[in-house]
This record gives sequence, structure tokens and C-alpha cells, in this order.
Amino acid sequence: MSNLYNELTCLLEAASADVLELQRLHRRQPSSVTEDLVPGQRMIKTLLIGILCGAAALTIGILIGHFGITKSGSSAPPWLQDVAKDVDESLIETFLSEVNTLRIEENLRELTRVPHMATTAGDERTVQLMLKRWQDPETGLDRAWREEYLVYLSFPDPKKPNKVTVVGPSGDVLHAIREKEKPYTAEQEDPEVVQPYAAYSPAGHAKGKLVYANQGTPSDYERLNQTVDLAGTIAITRYGGAGRGAKAVNAAPYGVAGVLVYTDPRDINDGVTSDAGETYPHSWYLPPSGVERGSFNGQFGDLLTPYLAAKEDTYRIPAENVTGIPPIPIQPIGYEDAYVLICALDGDAAPQNWQGGFNCTYNLGPGFKPTSAFSASDVQMDIFNYEEKRNSSNVMGVIRGSVEPGEAGPKQTARIRLGLCSECVRVHRQVRDLWEPQGQLGARRHRPEQRDLGHAGAEPRSGPVGEAGQMEAAQVHHLQQLGSRGVRTHRICRIHRAILHQAQRTHRRLHQRGHRCVWSPLPDECPPPCMRTGCGSPTEPARLWDSSPDWATSREQGATTRPSCTTWESLPWTSHTHTTGLKAALGPTPPTTPHTTPSTTPPGSSTQVRTHVLLRECPRHRSTRVPSGFLSHQAVARTAGNVLIRVADSLLLPLNCSDYAETLEQYLTTAESLYQEQLSAQKIPMEPLKRAVANFRSAASHLDRVIGASDLKNETPLKVRRINDQLMLLDRAFLNPLAFPEKYAYRHVIWASSSAGQPTFPGLADAYAQAESSGQSRDWERVHYQLSVLTQSIDGAAQTLVDVI
Amino acid sequence: MSNLYNELTCLLEAASADVLELQRLHRRQPSSVTEDLVPGQRMIKTLLIGILCGAAALTIGILIGHFGITKSGSSAPPWLQDVAKDVDESLIETFLSEVNTLRIEENLRELTRVPHMATTAGDERTVQLMLKRWQDPETGLDRAWREEYLVYLSFPDPKKPNKVTVVGPSGDVLHAIREKEKPYTAEQEDPEVVQPYAAYSPAGHAKGKLVYANQGTPSDYERLNQTVDLAGTIAITRYGGAGRGAKAVNAAPYGVAGVLVYTDPRDINDGVTSDAGETYPHSWYLPPSGVERGSFNGQFGDLLTPYLAAKEDTYRIPAENVTGIPPIPIQPIGYEDAYVLICALDGDAAPQNWQGGFNCTYNLGPGFKPTSAFSASDVQMDIFNYEEKRNSSNVMGVIRGSVEPGEAGPKQTARIRLGLCSECVRVHRQVRDLWEPQGQLGARRHRPEQRDLGHAGAEPRSGPVGEAGQMEAAQVHHLQQLGSRGVRTHRICRIHRAILHQAQRTHRRLHQRGHRCVWSPLPDECPPPCMRTGCGSPTEPARLWDSSPDWATSREQGATTRPSCTTWESLPWTSHTHTTGLKAALGPTPPTTPHTTPSTTPPGSSTQVRTHVLLRECPRHRSTRVPSGFLSHQAVARTAGNVLIRVADSLLLPLNCSDYAETLEQYLTTAESLYQEQLSAQKIPMEPLKRAVANFRSAASHLDRVIGASDLKNETPLKVRRINDQLMLLDRAFLNPLAFPEKYAYRHVIWASSSAGQPTFPGLADAYAQAESSGQSRDWERVHYQLSVLTQSIDGAAQTLVDVI
Repeated sequence: MSNLYNELTCLLEAASADVLELQRLHRRQPSSVTEDLVPGQRMIKTLLIGILCGAAALTIGILIGHFGITKSGSSAPPWLQDVAKDVDESLIETFLSEVNTLRIEENLRELTRVPHMATTAGDERTVQLMLKRWQDPETGLDRAWREEYLVYLSFPDPKKPNKVTVVGPSGDVLHAIREKEKPYTAEQEDPEVVQPYAAYSPAGHAKGKLVYANQGTPSDYERLNQTVDLAGTIAITRYGGAGRGAKAVNAAPYGVAGVLVYTDPRDINDGVTSDAGETYPHSWYLPPSGVERGSFNGQFGDLLTPYLAAKEDTYRIPAENVTGIPPIPIQPIGYEDAYVLICALDGDAAPQNWQGGFNCTYNLGPGFKPTSAFSASDVQMDIFNYEEKRNSSNVMGVIRGSVEPGEAGPKQTARIRLGLCSECVRVHRQVRDLWEPQGQLGARRHRPEQRDLGHAGAEPRSGPVGEAGQMEAAQVHHLQQLGSRGVRTHRICRIHRAILHQAQRTHRRLHQRGHRCVWSPLPDECPPPCMRTGCGSPTEPARLWDSSPDWATSREQGATTRPSCTTWESLPWTSHTHTTGLKAALGPTPPTTPHTTPSTTPPGSSTQVRTHVLLRECPRHRSTRVPSGFLSHQAVARTAGNVLIRVADSLLLPLNCSDYAETLEQYLTTAESLYQEQLSAQKIPMEPLKRAVANFRSAASHLDRVIGASDLKNETPLKVRRINDQLMLLDRAFLNPLAFPEKYAYRHVIWASSSAGQPTFPGLADAYAQAESSGQSRDWERVHYQLSVLTQSIDGAAQTLVDVI
Repeated sequence: MSNLYNELTCLLEAASADVLELQRLHRRQPSSVTEDLVPGQRMIKTLLIGILCGAAALTIGILIGHFGITKSGSSAPPWLQDVAKDVDESLIETFLSEVNTLRIEENLRELTRVPHMATTAGDERTVQLMLKRWQDPETGLDRAWREEYLVYLSFPDPKKPNKVTVVGPSGDVLHAIREKEKPYTAEQEDPEVVQPYAAYSPAGHAKGKLVYANQGTPSDYERLNQTVDLAGTIAITRYGGAGRGAKAVNAAPYGVAGVLVYTDPRDINDGVTSDAGETYPHSWYLPPSGVERGSFNGQFGDLLTPYLAAKEDTYRIPAENVTGIPPIPIQPIGYEDAYVLICALDGDAAPQNWQGGFNCTYNLGPGFKPTSAFSASDVQMDIFNYEEKRNSSNVMGVIRGSVEPGEAGPKQTARIRLGLCSECVRVHRQVRDLWEPQGQLGARRHRPEQRDLGHAGAEPRSGPVGEAGQMEAAQVHHLQQLGSRGVRTHRICRIHRAILHQAQRTHRRLHQRGHRCVWSPLPDECPPPCMRTGCGSPTEPARLWDSSPDWATSREQGATTRPSCTTWESLPWTSHTHTTGLKAALGPTPPTTPHTTPSTTPPGSSTQVRTHVLLRECPRHRSTRVPSGFLSHQAVARTAGNVLIRVADSLLLPLNCSDYAETLEQYLTTAESLYQEQLSAQKIPMEPLKRAVANFRSAASHLDRVIGASDLKNETPLKVRRINDQLMLLDRAFLNPLAFPEKYAYRHVIWASSSAGQPTFPGLADAYAQAESSGQSRDWERVHYQLSVLTQSIDGAAQTLVDVI
């Protein structure tokens, strides 16, 4: 426009020049008159000049009128640019470069300074800390607040520590299980560090012969019961294979009186057991007296308020109606004590795959060897846990979006949540700190167990999107946003039943499962262990990958598939190699901050779980224990922030429904190979499911074509909104609250939990497994029912992707 | 930019001033030589004129450039006007004036030409008819198609008509109930007219002493059982008070062997019973042999596929697991036969309010008077109904919207459905023709019964949004749309599970309940009988009313509340008076077509149900029987079309969340007065509910203020989309699929059905009634649970109305 102005000024100057020329002519007049131009000729010339000038002026006028003056009625409104705004790659680069390991370390140090079990003073301190940070007018979020819940928790009695003893025939105590870990650092001696206990284990006294029940799965007890009469016994089990609480739940039907659980060195320490130089504090291996505490609640959310928010006045079911918790006493112990017990066991040798890391044969029992010091002795458990309703707080924060700020309710496009999977999930509430016993509230199964001593330096403080990194990501991202406010509103963890339930949502959770970084598709269900590279919901990662230079390069070099999930699994936090996946997720590499993930695993280590064991250490040792100097935390914060910004600011959401089609096809292929023959025999047709999956593929391709053929920046913003809604709401079409009446809180027909262990549709897989095992026609009918539910869900989901006409 | 224009104008003026000054100087110069202008002077003058012309040309050019040429680069995009488009009132006026009674009559004649019970040839004919109309390239919709379902239906055996006889002690038949109505017209003798039967009554043979059980409600049987041993009896009941099937369901626990049901003249004919001049064909009163058929299924949707679409391959529950249908034989009979039976009954006189329109005392039985011809006789029922799965079709149609066409799935803004309540509802499927026995598929309770002989001239053909009017509305509206395509897509009845379940929706149903025209809030639940004037969901009618001239006038005259529901109830189809409501809903009165509703009720009639009885008549008589000449049909088509256009085209949806707040407050007031005292005694706090309702009011007021303060035509279209989503999705926040496990297909915590009969929150009311009656603490806990569900739903709904920050 300034060009135009210059041009016009020039033209005006030219017009003035005309005037000056006129003046000049006028002055020259006497001389010119001497020329022999007749007056008529002169006049014609003058007129011609005049006409030319007039034409020039008309042209100028047209130009001025067209370019120089804004139309009032039909001009472009000021919001036009906003609605076409796309993600700013330079913002992401700046963000990535600004994520600061020192600040993360400081965050972690602050968050873990004192033990902070839920509802304790230490817990309140972390609430205050996060509130203070997020409410800081300078560097905080646009809004941050606390949300309180009244939750049903389980505690050990500080005055009566739980006791496990070996009692001789005459009643004398031959051995007493250590009541607290052996202290290696001053921090451990903090009286606020909770004593070992199994949250939600009932109080009670049990006494009986000891048996070894491997991992306490249903088949373990079944197998053991073939050899040993389990009635009245105490079963010792190792962690793994079954949920913590399940080890007691599975035992009860056999009449087992009590259960012990310990961490076997084979599972966690590469067999290393000595604390004289081998284990913590000399390495990251679990020391012999270390005890893994945790929630022994297999359900999600507050136990007394299923499907409701656990607010003060909420109706609570009677405590005796609670299910999914141990019906008999259970207590965790260290492997130091487990060694003493197991190596003294009598009876047949346990099967080979039941053997653990101790230097003795694991026998089944019952009871101890006559040759041992515990001959004819029983194991006695005295558990004094108690349950109590206590107030517990969550901390929430919001960064307001500029273009689609959204409202608190249905317009979830406008809200992107950042939080731990288990925080923003499932049961209509979440709590900032999910550690024991507050972890009782969370969806524990999606996170590794806590073997911490109370400072909780690992998860949720250090895990992917752990608070330490979350605080850093939030802070850096917010700083970025101050310069260039994002399109959509960020909500840093807040939940409300109605929102969860009714609202559309883009909330995707980055969380840790085993040691994969996964994106889960919905608050309802987390995805199965291995999905695809970007890890998680099939709709999500494709665009993130596609937009990454690494992947773009690979594709140029002829790669046709993205790095596999296996690749991802083998890499993230433990190796310098195979970093493609992480780098891709992290986006372009800022020149000064290489994104190679640090090696945190010592040479020769064989299990990924060690990374976690490492992280579990006390904060004081964290920085020295993490050789990377918090580079892995940084990488996670970067990944989270990168994704957060892309989801918040991209004009077209970085989701891909064709990847969903691919997953459905894979599931279908598996289902066909596993079930088709038997289903045919049962006259249950699979064709409708095949047609539905094909419909879905076709609808997804259609939407891809619509997107490809669109000029979203220039078409009506209602179009990109419509497409974003289609991408975003796709998962909703798979929700069916009546699909799994037997599975509490599950309703996603593709990602619900499954016990069948097959990479296929969960409802179908479980129903099939049941029918195949029972052979009853009633169970085959359930298979058909699940097929119908699934087929109609997929058909319905496909419908959401096509045009109305 | 206009500054620039000013500046340029100034510069131009300045330039002209220079020229003028030059002229002035020039003129002054020859003041001495005024007479003879030198040639130079002449030239100057010419040049001056030229320059002035040039200036004029410049100005003209500016004007041309500004107004004459469309901008390309930064100018307003072509869609800008579309996204700000609002409803065109003149379109509505044209629509209203074009709704044609003759075409409606013709539609009705065509639709009812032959009996067309579902799945018969006559039924297929109506499918074809509607498809042909809607697929017509000239006058049809943008798309129309058929959707097929495989449904579980019940039929009488044409070769073995159901028999009800009075059998003497020696086995001789003393009286046989008429197997078909007495024919008055040739149409009635069409062999396709189905014989009287109770759809879903089991086949079977029952014989026993007759008893009179009033309306067959639970309390009726309870009362009767105090006097008579019901085991093995046949109970005769009159229509009303309980659902059809319920009369048998309620009887079974008392050991009743079979049930008869008839229409009492007191309930339908003002007591008139004679067909010698009094009843049809001499009036619209039901003739003595007339039998009301209908579905005796109390559930919604196909009985074998609960919560699933009844497609061919869908899993079906075993027929023996079906609930909600008569467990014992039941058969409808005419009052001619009922008179013979009831007036011969022995036993005590029935209570006063059990007495009906016959000129005898209704005794309770058991058995007949010794003085009667039936002394010592039994009633014998021989029922030969059978069930069968048959294909049944629905017809769907779509008019595509121009601005927000929507997709088939989640973007329901873009889709407005027009259809019968029971068609577009509840159980994921609907069928075009809900008549018996196809009516078995529908949500019968929301529609009056069918007492037709098979031609189905009343509902759904003539009811509000009956097909006759629907076809007309669709056609006229489509014609309108061709000229000015609507903003949002219309969908004329189509259902899909995923769409219903997951999608956002604006689908509101205009349907008849009793004889009120109501708008129901959601496909899930129809609203309680009386809501407010516009009739129906509180969010809906306000703007319709507010925009009506009648209401605007009343308001100017000081009215502060809209016409009450009572007013509406007392008026619609039967009277010239009190037409405010209807007129308001109809919108502005086109000058040539007065909207006064016709009187279709003869003088002296006292019950509205007669209108229906009138409408039930054969099509041949319809036009003569409807004195209005189809003006009421026209009024209904107009109402439907008016609303349809407003919902489809209004920039801001004509919904009002503050009216919802008002309803919640009214419900709360009722709940407080009814329950508060007892709840306090039970230590169940009502305060959370009160706070939630107050929150909701506050949130609704906030949204109203946001709307009031917005300039929606000129702000980003994403803003009006957001507000429309808030208005539209509000009801979703009230859905809780787990709130009423005992109520099939209900999940709206405000509008679910309730048996407590109180104008308050249904779940609370029912739970309270149960607790008060049983006094058990378990039931009081359910009350608390319902309070929590309700409170959290209202809180969640309020959340959807406020800003995210």
C-alpha cells in the first residue's frame, strides 16, 4: 500500500509539474508567440494535452479508488487472518531450544524435597508449589486453580506397623520381616517416609504354612493347587504377571489366608542382590531391603463413587460393596526377607519358569524344610491398615487460545490437555499426585509401579510428562505463547464428568506404558501396548511423523513405512541408537541442541525396567545417577511441548483417520485368522464386520481426498472446523457405554482392555476366549453380540467421515 | 485508509487551488487589458479547463476504482457473506403461504388408498410413493433412499382368527365375540384390513371365570384381588390408565389366565353407543363393533436387538428373553361385545370410578350372574398370533445445506431432522410407517393409539408432522430452497446408531402427545406432558415465540410470561379461540392465508380425543369429516416448516438456555417442597443440587450476555459456531447412560420417564417414591445416588455454557 501511496504522490507531483509547465509556457509566451503556430493549432495542442492529462488523472483516480481506499461494506474483516493461522514452526524450534535441563532438575528437586504421600503436609506443599508457579503473574498460566476431592484411601497404622513373622511350633518368633528399609541416606530416615504396606489390603491376622505361588496369576494358583492344598496357607508371590491386588484376589477362592509379595532380583536387578557394593547406593539396582509399595486396587478412580466425581457430597457406596481390592491380607516385603523364606521352603521344586534370581531352588511348599531353622513353623501376618476418606487436591491450569478459545464444555477443539494418562482419565477425576497411596485413585495399570521410598522422584515427577517436565513445558510454552498466543486453549489437567462424557475432545495423553511413549486415543481407554511408531492412537502420529525432517528424508530414500513400534520400543530412553523415532517426534533439531537421547543404561543391562529403577532414586542422587544430566527429561518435555503446540495451533489437526483404518484392517486380519473358522462353524457371520472395515477404509480415504483437495487457508473457516471435528470426534463414534457391562469404566470398542492377549478387537477377543473355553451356546451368543456391537460402531464411525450428501 | 482518501482529496483540491490562483493572477494581470485576451491567456483558460476536467476525471476515476472494481488480494473472500447469513423471513412467509391443503389432502388420499400394514404390499406401495416423490429430479429432495431393517413382528393367523367365546358348563358356545368389525363402507371389507388382535400377545388357550379389572393398572388388580381370587380368571379391562401390554403384564402375577380389552364409550364417545344414527358413519364416534388394535409391546424398538440396529446380521436375543410384552393371552374386542359380557357379570359392584358408559352396573365378577344367559359359564380365549422376523423399510431424505452442509456424522448443526417423534427416536432405528403391527417398532407411548381399520388415515398420516403434511412441508420447503438454499442440511428422517449416540445434534422432533404439539429435547427422551408454551424442550421455543408478532404484541402490552402450556393444550386442533400459541409458532401471518385453526370439534364435545377419533376415519370420509378442509393439517405443516427453516437457517440457533434454567428451577422448587423434609431426616443433603441449579442459572445468564454483547454477523464465524454448539449440545450434558439401568433406553437425567407423576427430576422422583414406599435404607441410598447423578449432570451442563477462562 505504501507503494501505491508513493505512486500516487509521484502522479500528483506530475500533475503539479503540469501546472509548472503551464507557468513556464506562460512566461515563455512572448517568445513562443513569435513562433508561427496559429492560435487554433496551439489551442488544439493545449486541448490534447488537457485531454491526455485528464485521461491520466482518470487512470490515477481509478488506481487510487481501487487500491488506496478500503471498502467499508465488503472489505476483509480483521479476524480473517486469524482463522487461517497455522502452526508456527519457528515457535516450535524456539520452544525446543528453550526447554532447560537445569530448570527441570530444579523442578524435580523442589517437587521431591520431602516425602509427599497424598493428603500429607508434603503433598500440600507440592500443591502449593505448582499453584504458585502457575499462578505467577509473570511466568504463570492464564489461570490455575486447585480442585478438591474426597477420596477413600488406605493407610498403615503408624503406631502399629504391619508385622510378618515366622512362628515356631511353640509360638516363638523365629524370624521377623524388616519393618522399614535399611537406611542408606538421611532422606530415607525421614519419619514421613511411609512404612511398607499394600494399600487396600484389609487389616487382619493370618497364620499358615508358607507356599510359593510364583506371580499369583489364576493359572499359578491353579497349578499350585494341583500339588498343594492351599486352604489356610500363606502364599508368597513375586511381582509381575498379575496386578498387585489380583495376587490376593486370585488366591482367595483357594482358601489362602494371606499373601506376601516381593520383587525378585531376577526381574529387576539382573540377579544382583548384594548391597555390599552392587546395589543402591552403589548402583541403581534395588537394594535387598527395598520394598515396592503401591495401590492394590484394581479398579479406576475412587472406590466409593464409581462413575461419579468424588466430591464431598457425592453418594458413596457402602465400603463392604467395594470390589477389585484384596479380600485377604497382603503385604509387600523386601527380597532380603523373601530369600530367607523361599530358600527354606519344603515340597516339590517349582516349575522352571517359576524359578527366580535367588541362589537356591524355589520349592512350592507347603511349609519349611525339616532341615531348616523354620522347621514346622508357620508364617504369621498381622496387618493393621485402615481406610479413611480424605481430601485430596489436583492442580489445574489453562493457557487461553486466541482463535478458538473454546468454552469449558463441548468445544474441545479449543482445549488441549497435558497431563499424565492416568491423571486425565477414566473415572471423572484425577489427582495431581498419583503416588502411593494416592495412586490408589489412578489407572495404575498404565504406569509402572512405584518402588520409591516416598520422595517419588520417578513417576509422576520424572516420567514422560512427569510434573518436572510438565512444569517446564508449561512454563516455556507459555512464555512462547506470550509472544504469539496459540490458536486453541491449553488446559493443563482438569477433568469434569460432563466434559469427559459429553464433550468433544482432543485431549490426548502422552504417558508411559512400560517404557514406551504412547499416545492414547481417549480418556476412556489407553491403547494396546504396540500400536505404531508415533506410539498410540492411530489417528495421531502420522502428521507428526510426516512433518518431521527425519521421516521426510527416509521417505525420499525410499522408505514406505514409518519406523516400527519395535524400533521405538527399543530406543527411547536407553540408547543413542535408533533415535529416529524420538527425533521425529521432537521435530526439527535446533542447531545448538542436539536431540540424541542420552544413554542412561549401563553396559550389559538387559531389561528396560532398569531405566525406571534408575529414576526411582532419591532426588539427591538423581543428577548423578542420570548421566545424561536430565537430557531424557528434556527430550520428554520437548516431545510433549512439540505435540502440544502442533495440536493447539495447526490449522488442520495433526490427526489421520487413514491410520485408524489401517489398525482396523490389522485387527480384522488377526480376527479372521484366529476366529473365522470357528465362527463359521457356529454360524456367526464375520462378513458384516469385514464390510464395516472396508466402509471405514473407504470413508477415511474419502476424507483424506477432501482434505487434499481443499484450500483450507482460503476457504470458509467452517470447513476446516468441520474437518477438524471429523478427525477429532472420530473416537467418540467408537464409544459404547453398554458394550462391556462387565468391564468397569471401559466403553471404547477398539481400545478397551482385553484379557485375551490378542492384537485384535477386545470385546470380540474376550468373548471368543470365553466361548471357546466354556463351549456354551450362551457364550457363543455373546461373541455374536460383540461382533454386532463392533460392526455397528465401525459403520457408525465411517459415517462420521463421509459427507452428508 | 479513508484518511488517505481525504488526504488525496485535499491534495487534489490544493492542486486545483493552485490552478485557480494562477487564473486569479492571470485575470488580474490583464485587468488593464480586459477587452482583448491575448492568445496566451486563451490558452491558459483552455488549459485551466483541461486541468479542471482532469481533476474531475480523477475524482470519477477514484469513484470507479473504489466502487466499480472488485478487489482481489486482501479483499473479502466470497464466503464472507454466506457465513453471516441469517434466516430469511420472506422465505418463511412464502413457505407459509404455499403450504397447500389440496396437496395435503391428495397426499393423504394416496398414502391411505389401501390398507398398508407394515411389510404388506400396501406398505411397500407407500414406500414407493414417498421414494418417487422425494427422488423426483424436479420437485424432490437432494437425496432420498430406503433403509431396511429386519424386525420381529407379531401377526394374527389369517386362517385361524382369534376367538373369544362364552362357554357354558356343558361346553356349548353361548356367545362368540365378533371376529371383524361390522362393515359400514366398502373399504372396510378389503381383505387386507387386519383382523383385531393384540400384537405380541402370545398364542394360547385360556378359559376361566370373567372378572372386571377396570383399566388393568397394578392398583386395579391389587384392589380387585382383595375381593376376588384372580387365579385362573379372564380379566376384562378398558383402555386407558395403563399401557396396552401392561394390562396383561400387571395381571400375570395374580395368576390371571387371559385378558380382554375394549374401548369404553364413556372414554371415547361421550357415552354414545348406538350405531343406529349416533356413531360412525353418522358421526365420528366409534361404532359398537370398532376394535382398537395396536402394539402390546411396552419397550422401544425391535424386541430382539435391544440397543442395536435391527439389521439382517445383527445379533438377536432369544425370543424367550424378550421382556415388556404380554406373558399371557390378551385380545382387544369391541364395546358391543364388552357390553354383553360386563353387564352380565356377577359379584360386587365395582367402585364408582371404575364404572363406564354402559347402562348397567359394572360388577367385579367372578363369573356371570346366575340370572344371566351365561350363568355358570366361562370365557374362553383361543389366540393364534405368531411372531416373525420381516423386512421393513424406512424412507429417508436430505436437503443439502449451503453454508454448513455437515457430514453424516458429528456435525449435527448441519442437519435438522423432520420426522415423527417415534420415528427418529430412541432405539437406533425407525420405520416410516408405525402402524399396527409396524407400530410395534415405535415408541408407542408418545402417540395416541390406532383404532383404524387398516387405512391409517390418522397418525402417522395426518398427525402433526404426519406424512401427508410432512410430504407437503418437504416439497414446499424444497421448492423454496431451490431459490435460496438453506444454511444447514435438512435430513428428513434417517437414523444411525453412531449418529444418534455420538453425534451432536439439533434434531428436535415435533410430535403429538395426547393432543399437544410438543418439541422434545432429544431423541432419547420425549419431554414431560407439559413443559411450556412453545411446547417442549425449554431451550427451544423461546426464540420462536419471541420472534412472533403475537407474542411481541402481548409483551408490549405488558405480558411477562408467554402463553402457558395449559393455553396451548386447550387449543390446538379444536377451537378457534386461544390460537395465540399456534399462531405464534406459525410466525407472521401471510396476508392471504389466515392462520386461525379450524374447528374440527362438533358442539358439545368434551374430550379432545375425539379429534383423533375423527381423524381415524377412512380417507374417503376424511375431507367431509374434517370440516376445515384440511386447514389443521395445513397449520401443522406450516408450523413444522416454519420451525424447520428457522432452525436450519438462523445464524444464531433459535434455542434459549435460560429457559432451561427456568425449568430446572421449577423442578427444584417442586423437589424441595416434596422431598426436602424427608431427605433432611435421612441426612441426604439437597444443597449440592441447589448450588448446581444456581450455577446453571448463572452460566445460562452468562451465555445470554455473551450473545447479547456479540455482533455475530461481523465477528469470526467460529464464534457463532461456538455459541451454537453450546446451545445445541447442552442437552448432551444431561445424558448419562448409567443413570437409569432399570429404564430401557432412557439416559436423559431431566427428561427420562418417571412413574412418580411429579413435575420434577425423574430419577429423583422415582427413587424417592420407592424409598418412601419401602422405607428401606438401600432405597434411600438410591435416592442419594440419583441426587448425585443429577447434581453432577447439572454442574457439568453449566460448565458447557461458560467460557473456558
